[in-house]
Amino acid sequence: MSDMNLVVVGAAGRMGQTLIRTIAATPGVKLAGAVERKGAAQLGRDAGELAGVGNLGIAITDDPLSVFAKADGVLDFTLPAATVEFAGYAAQARIAHIIGTTGCSDADDASIAAAARHATIVKSGNMSLGVNLLAVLVEQAARALDAGDFDIEVLEMHHRSKVDAPSGTALMLGAAAARGREVALAEQSVRVRDGVTGPRQQGTIGFATLRGGSVIGEHSVILAGSSERIVLSHHAEDRSLFAKGAITAALWARDRKPGLYSMRDVLGLN
Amino acid sequence: MSDMNLVVVGAAGRMGQTLIRTIAATPGVKLAGAVERKGAAQLGRDAGELAGVGNLGIAITDDPLSVFAKADGVLDFTLPAATVEFAGYAAQARIAHIIGTTGCSDADDASIAAAARHATIVKSGNMSLGVNLLAVLVEQAARALDAGDFDIEVLEMHHRSKVDAPSGTALMLGAAAARGREVALAEQSVRVRDGVTGPRQQGTIGFATLRGGSVIGEHSVILAGSSERIVLSHHAEDRSLFAKGAITAALWARDRKPGLYSMRDVLGLN
Amino acid sequence: MSDMNLVVVGAAGRMGQTLIRTIAATPGVKLAGAVERKGAAQLGRDAGELAGVGNLGIAITDDPLSVFAKADGVLDFTLPAATVEFAGYAAQARIAHIIGTTGCSDADDASIAAAARHATIVKSGNMSLGVNLLAVLVEQAARALDAGDFDIEVLEMHHRSKVDAPSGTALMLGAAAARGREVALAEQSVRVRDGVTGPRQQGTIGFATLRGGSVIGEHSVILAGSSERIVLSHHAEDRSLFAKGAITAALWARDRKPGLYSMRDVLGLN
Amino acid sequence: MSDMNLVVVGAAGRMGQTLIRTIAATPGVKLAGAVERKGAAQLGRDAGELAGVGNLGIAITDDPLSVFAKADGVLDFTLPAATVEFAGYAAQARIAHIIGTTGCSDADDASIAAAARHATIVKSGNMSLGVNLLAVLVEQAARALDAGDFDIEVLEMHHRSKVDAPSGTALMLGAAAARGREVALAEQSVRVRDGVTGPRQQGTIGFATLRGGSVIGEHSVILAGSSERIVLSHHAEDRSLFAKGAITAALWARDRKPGLYSMRDVLGLN
Repeated sequence: MSDMNLVVVGAAGRMGQTLIRTIAATPGVKLAGAVERKGAAQLGRDAGELAGVGNLGIAITDDPLSVFAKADGVLDFTLPAATVEFAGYAAQARIAHIIGTTGCSDADDASIAAAARHATIVKSGNMSLGVNLLAVLVEQAARALDAGDFDIEVLEMHHRSKVDAPSGTALMLGAAAARGREVALAEQSVRVRDGVTGPRQQGTIGFATLRGGSVIGEHSVILAGSSERIVLSHHAEDRSLFAKGAITAALWARDRKPGLYSMRDVLGLN
Repeated sequence: MSDMNLVVVGAAGRMGQTLIRTIAATPGVKLAGAVERKGAAQLGRDAGELAGVGNLGIAITDDPLSVFAKADGVLDFTLPAATVEFAGYAAQARIAHIIGTTGCSDADDASIAAAARHATIVKSGNMSLGVNLLAVLVEQAARALDAGDFDIEVLEMHHRSKVDAPSGTALMLGAAAARGREVALAEQSVRVRDGVTGPRQQGTIGFATLRGGSVIGEHSVILAGSSERIVLSHHAEDRSLFAKGAITAALWARDRKPGLYSMRDVLGLN
Repeated sequence: MSDMNLVVVGAAGRMGQTLIRTIAATPGVKLAGAVERKGAAQLGRDAGELAGVGNLGIAITDDPLSVFAKADGVLDFTLPAATVEFAGYAAQARIAHIIGTTGCSDADDASIAAAARHATIVKSGNMSLGVNLLAVLVEQAARALDAGDFDIEVLEMHHRSKVDAPSGTALMLGAAAARGREVALAEQSVRVRDGVTGPRQQGTIGFATLRGGSVIGEHSVILAGSSERIVLSHHAEDRSLFAKGAITAALWARDRKPGLYSMRDVLGLN
Repeated sequence: MSDMNLVVVGAAGRMGQTLIRTIAATPGVKLAGAVERKGAAQLGRDAGELAGVGNLGIAITDDPLSVFAKADGVLDFTLPAATVEFAGYAAQARIAHIIGTTGCSDADDASIAAAARHATIVKSGNMSLGVNLLAVLVEQAARALDAGDFDIEVLEMHHRSKVDAPSGTALMLGAAAARGREVALAEQSVRVRDGVTGPRQQGTIGFATLRGGSVIGEHSVILAGSSERIVLSHHAEDRSLFAKGAITAALWARDRKPGLYSMRDVLGLN
């Protein structure tokens, strides 16, 4: 099959540049367009040069429709309003739209769902293949093991600059465990332990947070029983993780029939 | 519900005694009979005293049928010939038969399958809930992640007295990974690395073995991609692991319709 | 050399019985006496039978002096008042006294130090060889690595019944790190993280606590720099850990000149 | 104190460029010169531009003496013959010379030692602070713990492109363990295990190797006793590790009296 032609929107931003570099390094895909908002300082510059991978002959443009028309898919880690607009254009062009944008309102999601009647949309709050797979495995393990005998703990470590705890991914994994047990995470989570805590309450889901150095992101879900322990972990090694997941999603979505999909579909787990 | 009445066969052996101690410590089950082979020195002794949990009023007998008749299930980690015989008695008594016996021939398995028309049989080469669950998760992860980007490695550590490598459980986990990828483990496994090995061959499944101290058993399956890693691990903390798994299987099997089940069924994963 | 003759005081207690079992399983030492307090129900019973290792021909007595006189060392995990008394007897008998008793007052410690003019005393709040060694390594690593570039975190996991957090051993390891950096742990420790924490403060020592299942005790000290991480861990596998450390201390102390020693001396690290 | 002026030799190579980028990102140091061999294509180009950090006003030159004369130190990951020559120039200029070059012959080392009468030289086969520290800790742990009760294993994981096993660093850690025990690694090492191995031989040092994905480098030394385990690990997170170690060594060496030092001295562990 010929290379898949991909458009990057938000091409001058940090994530946009990472997407462009990752496309350049991935066989089977190529950069077919680069879009920025009207008035952006980088309009007209070569997208490859801006991203540090040399001239790709792709000038950054503020006209999405013209580039979508010649492309097979668009990678989008922008903002909700822009994403809703791009979803409409992707539907017109009948191409794949891979959405890593976060913070969409219910109304935004409804617009995206409407666009998915004509576009093949993959949308996820976390584009990492590994983290999405881990969440599926955690849910399943939590369902299979009796809450009376197995305690669930979620541990995460991130670099020293991270300003909140636990991480969004830790909470996502805790939610997957809660779903497996058919309980509400908010009612079962234990976020800190210090001093005289008393014995662990059966059925709770505990969190623990480590911070230090340059750790990109490590997550472990521990299911600790009375004579054995299962530990399911994810280690991020490189910040291009999400770009790679988005490209995998695009290749999966190519020529697939329109609809709204998640990374679970891409992983073949739905 | 009243306690489930369990018979332990091979009651004077090391595993039999562990089963008796674990039953004594587990709510919802009680020891209803203890069987040894004809001529065993311990016939007539109290099974609880022999196992170090005090007198239970259960004398060890060589007459399985009489005790099966009054019981709800039998726990069996003996030898293939005995297990085949016990399966027949369990079928007559219409009770659950939990089989952890290894080394059964095809003919043995056929006899057991025949008995399963009347008995509710759970049979597994490894009665640990955690290891069986891990194998299911490994198979799924191996299926979901592209072999072109994710390398699979199986690591295990056991105590210094273990005489073979890799462990049977490591091979079972490697086989689960191979099944997920639809390849034959024998053709893809890399059992050792030393000296100039050249780069890793895509699609292979590597094994590494650690030995030392008193480690009961630790297994990890690593799926290493080009910017992230998933690690799925099991830690055995206590040798009563298999006894606990067998009791869980028995409770699951109680009042279930006859048939041949595996630990995957017990875990609700089939 | 002939076997070292050891007396266990508090012989009917849980730790006393563990000591007796561990002595029975260790080459080079043998049980020479078993002491309980006056009026104890077990006086006169055989210490080995009580501990479940069969008759050892050692009746439990309430007369320490008579058994100390025939012994080479005494293992003591009792209470401060008893320990002070035993230290006096050990000094009279000129034998080794291994003290794992916790909670001694300054006055108790002064009495013990006085006894150490004639007895060879090894005293430590944690008799595990591994934990004591780890504390030494942690102190050294914390001293060697620049606090401006390496963040220190202490992680521990214990079983579900543990009622306080962080564990005493975690705090001991944190204190070792603080000593290496010549700071006060109390001023630098971060005991919990939840919500918007802001970036990590340079120089702090963080703690995180996991609880679940039957975990005996796992501790890790993480030194996380801007492109590398060192992790120093201890895994307890078996509750006989402290008994083994005490016996190692006794063998080290045999025929050594009187004085007050710690596990660091036993490990050859002072 | 004013910034330390550093010269990078081999400035156009991969390691040279990493050094230049790391200097640019590190407070307290600045690039004062960039040297390449005569005839190199990059002579005259700006060193910062070549390394991707923008113009630094430092043209690459083939005249080391002129730039050494204005500098405080030189960072050198080149080849033995060049390193010997640079050591002579550093001695003339009386500046610090940080040597990460590997493969030096005895004659090379003798020349370097001679230069160290006038230059402050730090030389190490592995410039990572963490790995050097870990080797010191491993040696100490191996010395402290009885080989009769603690088994030592070395585990490493690297990316799929690595062509040899075990890694040089794993062997360096194994050698540190052997030194602690006063045995010869070559006589005690067990490099592979497969099939029927028999029980572990007391006193041996085992190696196990994992390969996969993009793992930069992970090393663990496990000391496994009969009821506890110590694990000492290093995780490389970023390939700038060695450049950072070299800069730390340079800052340590500044204004220190001439002599031949190692990373152990830099860490304050000699």
